[in-house]
Amino acid sequence: MTTVSLPESLIGTPPGSDYTDPAGFAREQERIFERTWFAVARATDLPTPGKFVTRQVGRESVLVVRGRDGALRAFLNVCRHRGAQLCRQPEGELRRSIQCMYHAWTYGFDGKLIAAPNLASFEGVRKEDYGLREVHLREWIGYAWVNLADAPPSFEQDVLGSATTRLGEENAIGDWKIDSLTVGHRIEYDVRANWKLLIENFMECYHCATIHPELTEVLPEFTEGWAAQSYVGHGASFGDDVQGFTVDGSEGLGTIPGLAPERDRKYYAITVRPNVFINMMPDHVVVHRMYPLAADRTLVECDWLFAPETLAEAPDLTRTIELFDRVNRQDFDACEATQPGMASRSYRDGGVLVPNEHHLADFHEWVTERLNRPL
Amino acid sequence: MTTVSLPESLIGTPPGSDYTDPAGFAREQERIFERTWFAVARATDLPTPGKFVTRQVGRESVLVVRGRDGALRAFLNVCRHRGAQLCRQPEGELRRSIQCMYHAWTYGFDGKLIAAPNLASFEGVRKEDYGLREVHLREWIGYAWVNLADAPPSFEQDVLGSATTRLGEENAIGDWKIDSLTVGHRIEYDVRANWKLLIENFMECYHCATIHPELTEVLPEFTEGWAAQSYVGHGASFGDDVQGFTVDGSEGLGTIPGLAPERDRKYYAITVRPNVFINMMPDHVVVHRMYPLAADRTLVECDWLFAPETLAEAPDLTRTIELFDRVNRQDFDACEATQPGMASRSYRDGGVLVPNEHHLADFHEWVTERLNRPL
Amino acid sequence: MTTVSLPESLIGTPPGSDYTDPAGFAREQERIFERTWFAVARATDLPTPGKFVTRQVGRESVLVVRGRDGALRAFLNVCRHRGAQLCRQPEGELRRSIQCMYHAWTYGFDGKLIAAPNLASFEGVRKEDYGLREVHLREWIGYAWVNLADAPPSFEQDVLGSATTRLGEENAIGDWKIDSLTVGHRIEYDVRANWKLLIENFMECYHCATIHPELTEVLPEFTEGWAAQSYVGHGASFGDDVQGFTVDGSEGLGTIPGLAPERDRKYYAITVRPNVFINMMPDHVVVHRMYPLAADRTLVECDWLFAPETLAEAPDLTRTIELFDRVNRQDFDACEATQPGMASRSYRDGGVLVPNEHHLADFHEWVTERLNRPL
Repeated sequence: MTTVSLPESLIGTPPGSDYTDPAGFAREQERIFERTWFAVARATDLPTPGKFVTRQVGRESVLVVRGRDGALRAFLNVCRHRGAQLCRQPEGELRRSIQCMYHAWTYGFDGKLIAAPNLASFEGVRKEDYGLREVHLREWIGYAWVNLADAPPSFEQDVLGSATTRLGEENAIGDWKIDSLTVGHRIEYDVRANWKLLIENFMECYHCATIHPELTEVLPEFTEGWAAQSYVGHGASFGDDVQGFTVDGSEGLGTIPGLAPERDRKYYAITVRPNVFINMMPDHVVVHRMYPLAADRTLVECDWLFAPETLAEAPDLTRTIELFDRVNRQDFDACEATQPGMASRSYRDGGVLVPNEHHLADFHEWVTERLNRPL
Repeated sequence: MTTVSLPESLIGTPPGSDYTDPAGFAREQERIFERTWFAVARATDLPTPGKFVTRQVGRESVLVVRGRDGALRAFLNVCRHRGAQLCRQPEGELRRSIQCMYHAWTYGFDGKLIAAPNLASFEGVRKEDYGLREVHLREWIGYAWVNLADAPPSFEQDVLGSATTRLGEENAIGDWKIDSLTVGHRIEYDVRANWKLLIENFMECYHCATIHPELTEVLPEFTEGWAAQSYVGHGASFGDDVQGFTVDGSEGLGTIPGLAPERDRKYYAITVRPNVFINMMPDHVVVHRMYPLAADRTLVECDWLFAPETLAEAPDLTRTIELFDRVNRQDFDACEATQPGMASRSYRDGGVLVPNEHHLADFHEWVTERLNRPL
Repeated sequence: MTTVSLPESLIGTPPGSDYTDPAGFAREQERIFERTWFAVARATDLPTPGKFVTRQVGRESVLVVRGRDGALRAFLNVCRHRGAQLCRQPEGELRRSIQCMYHAWTYGFDGKLIAAPNLASFEGVRKEDYGLREVHLREWIGYAWVNLADAPPSFEQDVLGSATTRLGEENAIGDWKIDSLTVGHRIEYDVRANWKLLIENFMECYHCATIHPELTEVLPEFTEGWAAQSYVGHGASFGDDVQGFTVDGSEGLGTIPGLAPERDRKYYAITVRPNVFINMMPDHVVVHRMYPLAADRTLVECDWLFAPETLAEAPDLTRTIELFDRVNRQDFDACEATQPGMASRSYRDGGVLVPNEHHLADFHEWVTERLNRPL
C-alpha cells in the first residue's frame, strides 16, 4: 500500500494518523488553538458588569467577564494562590468581584488582586504580583476573540484578513453589521470526529449534492460541487423559484437593514482559521465556533444571529433555523462516518482530493506550517 | 519474588503483563489477528447479492458482501476517496452497489469503482486504481474466513490442519456436514478479560469439576480434569444415564443425518488458533468466534447450528441451548475473575500449569512465535 | 511565566503536573502507597474466623481475613495457580477455607495451601511453596494496618510516631481508647481530585473561614486560619456557647469514659502520612482512610466511632454525624474545584503557600523524599 504517484487531477490528503493520534492532537492544542484567535463569547451574552462566561480554549479554561468600565477582559480561570478554578459554571453573574471559593482570594473584574484573608500580614507580598493571568482579547463582529499566546499574531492579518481575502474588499463584511445582530438561537453539537474533518467538510461542496438536499434546493449551484467560498467575492445565488434561505425555500425574514441589493438573495461563507465559520444570508448570519476536545471529539457552538428589528416582530424562526440545523446534522454525521476510517490501514497514506476539493490542500499546508513553526 | 525453579510437574505461564499491557495487545492485533484466518461471517447470513455484514478483525472494520455472481468477497470498509466508512451497520442489504454516504463514490459488490460525481472530468484518473482494498476470503464449514495479510499463511495448513490434527484424520470434520447446518440461535457475550484467558480456559478441563456442574453431569470424564481435545481423535462420551447434550441430560434433538454411529453420544472440540472454537455434538454444533477489543475486553459471538431437517420440525431448543450458554457464562465469569489478578505483583512472573494443563504451553509458544516472527 | 523569587512570607507549591500526570501517579503508587502503612480494615468488621474484607492498597487487591486462632492476616488476593482473584466482594464470610472459584485451589485462613484437585499426583510439588503471598499486618487503635513492602519501615516510628509528635507525648492517643470504640456510621466519598489535594486540604485551616461555617461556629479559633494540628499538643477549644461537636452546636453524646477533663470540649486531629486522618472529639472519633485510584480520583472511607456504652443507649447520631459529613463535602468540593486548575499553564510552576499553610511544605518534602528514595 505504498503511495503510487497520483494523476494531476488528484492531490493527496494527510495520513489518517493525523486525525487519530493523541500526541498529534496535544501538539495541535499547543501550537494551533493556544496561539490563534478564537471567538470565545458573544459580547451581548455579557451585557453588564460581572456577567461572565467560561469556555475551553486549547487546554485552558478561559474566563471572560465584563468590567465596571464596560470593557470585556479574559483571564485564565485559575486562582493564583492554590490553583482552584474561579468560575465553575459556563456562564453566570458575579456580584462584586471574582472570589475564589476555596480561600476567598478576591479579584476585581479587571483581574487585580483586591483582598485575601490575612493578606495584610503577609510580609513582602505585593498585590500587583498576584493578579489573574490575563489573556489577549479583541472584539469584532460582536464577538470577544481571545488569544492565549504571550505575543499574539496580528488580529488584523489573521482574522480581519480572512474576511477581506474571502469577500475581496476590506470591510465588506461590515455590510451585514454583524456586531449589531442579536442571538436568536443557539445549538451545541457534540461531534465524535476530529476537528479537521469538520473544517474540511465546511470548506468543500463536493458532498453537497449527496447529503444536503434542502441546501442544494435553495442554492442550485452547490450541486456542481464547487465551494462558493473558494471564489473571491462570490456569493452563491438562490434558485429562481426560491423565496428565502429556509428549509423549504419559503419566504425568509426581513433583509438586514441597509444590506446592499447585490448581497440580497445570496449566501456567503467565510472560514476564519482554524475553527470559526461565518455564514451570511440576506436576513440572518450563522456563526459556528468549534472547540476541539480530543483527537476524535469536537464541540460546536452554533449561533443564529438576526437584526434586532427583525426579532422585535417576534417572527417564526423555525424554517430559517431548521435549514442550517439540518445542514449541520448532515455534515456532522458525515464527519462521524469518516472518523473510524482514519484508523484503517486503507487510509494509512491518506486519501485523495478531487479538483472540487483542491483548495483543501491550502488548509493542510496551513496546519503543517503552524505545527512546525518554531516556538 | 524471583522465579524459583519449578518441579517437573509444573510449567510456568507467561507473566501477568502479557494480559494487561496495551502495547502488547496492539502488537497482538498487528501480528496475530491481522495475519491469521478468522471466521468472520456465517455464509447463510448473506443469502443473496447485496447482503452484507461488517465485523471488527484486528483493528480493521471488514465488509463482507455477496456479489451478483453469488461469491462472497471481503473488503476494508473504507472509501478510497476521503476515508468514510462505507457500511455503518453490523449487517444489512445493499440495493445496487456500495455507495459512500459522503460524496457518493460508488463501488460494485466486487469492489470495483463504478462511479463518482464529476469522475469523467478528473484527468488521468483510472477507475481501476480506486477500487476497494480487497481482503483474502475462503469458505469452509459454512463460514467466510478472512485474512488481512498481503500474503496469507496456508489456509489448508492453519485451519483445515487444526481439524485434522485434532480429529486424527483428514476431512473427519466433514462427518458433521457443518456447512449445511443452519444457525438456530446466536448469543453475543461481552467479556471483560484478555482473549488469551478465554483460549486457555477453553483448552483445559482442570476447571470443569469446579465450575461446570451441568457439563460434567453429561460428560463424566470431564471431572478428571483432562481436556478431551488434547487426545487425538478422542471424543468425550456421554454418561450412561445421559440421554442427550442438554442442560439436564434429557433427550436431545435428532442426530445430524448421516453421522457415523461412533460419533454419536460424544462431544468433540477443536480450537482453530487463535480465536475460533468448534464444538461438535451428535445433534448440533456450537461455534465460538472471539473478537479481541482491548487488552481486557473480548467480544464472543456464539452460534448454535442445527440440521435444517431438525429445525424444520420446530423443536424446543431451550434445554439444548441452555447447556452451552451456562458453560459459556461459567467460563467467562472465571476469566473475568482472573483478569484483575494479572495486574498483581503476585502474578508478575506468572503462575503455574499443572499436568492437566501442560498442553497450554503449546499455545503460549505459538503466541510467542507469532509475536516475534519477522514481518 | 517563569517563577519570580517569592517574598519570605510565601513558599512555592509543587508544579501542577504533580497532580495530573499518570506516570507520576504510578510512581506514587509504587513508592508511597505500596511501601507505607495503611489502615485497611476496622478489626471489629471482622469479628469471627472466616470474616474477610478486600481493599485496594496501591495497585493491589489485599485480602484481610480473621484466622481460626483469632489473628488477622493479610494476603495478596490472588491464587497462586492461574491468578484468579480469590475474594471478589468487598466483604463477606468464608466457611472453612479460602477456595479459588476457578480450579478450587484451597487455602487456610493462614494462607497455607491445603488442597487442590489432583494435587497428590503432581510430582515434586510441595504445598508449602504455594501458599498465598502474605502482607505485613499490625493492629493499632482497632484497625488492621498493612504494608506491602518486603521490608516495611518501622511501624512505631511512622505510625505511632505521628500520633506522638502531634499530641506531644507518647501514648497520649490512648486517652480516647480508640481500639475499643465501635463503628456507628460509615460513608464512602468518591472524590474527583488528586489524593495530595485532600491531604493538603486536611492539613491547613486557612480555608476554614471560607467553606466551613458550621465547623468554625463550633471551633471559633479556626476562623483565624491556623491549623490546630500544626501546634504540638494543642486541641482546638469549642466556643463558649457551644454545647457539643454537632452540626448546630447542640449537645453531643456522652464523653468517652475515662477521657481526661483537659481533653473535653476540644478537637484534636492527626495526619498519619500518607493517607489516614484521625479526628478526636470528646464523644466520638472520626477516621478518614483514602484510597488513591487515579491521578484525579480518590476514594475516601470515613468512619464515625463511638463508645459502646454510648451506642447502647441508641442515641440519635444525626447531628453528630452531620457536622463532619458537611465538612467532608465542603472540603471535597474544594478539592474538586482545584483539580482542573492543576492542568492550567497558570499553575505550571505551582502556586503559593501563605504563612497559615507553611507547614504543608513539610508534606511536600516528605512526598519528594519518598519518591526519590532508592528502592
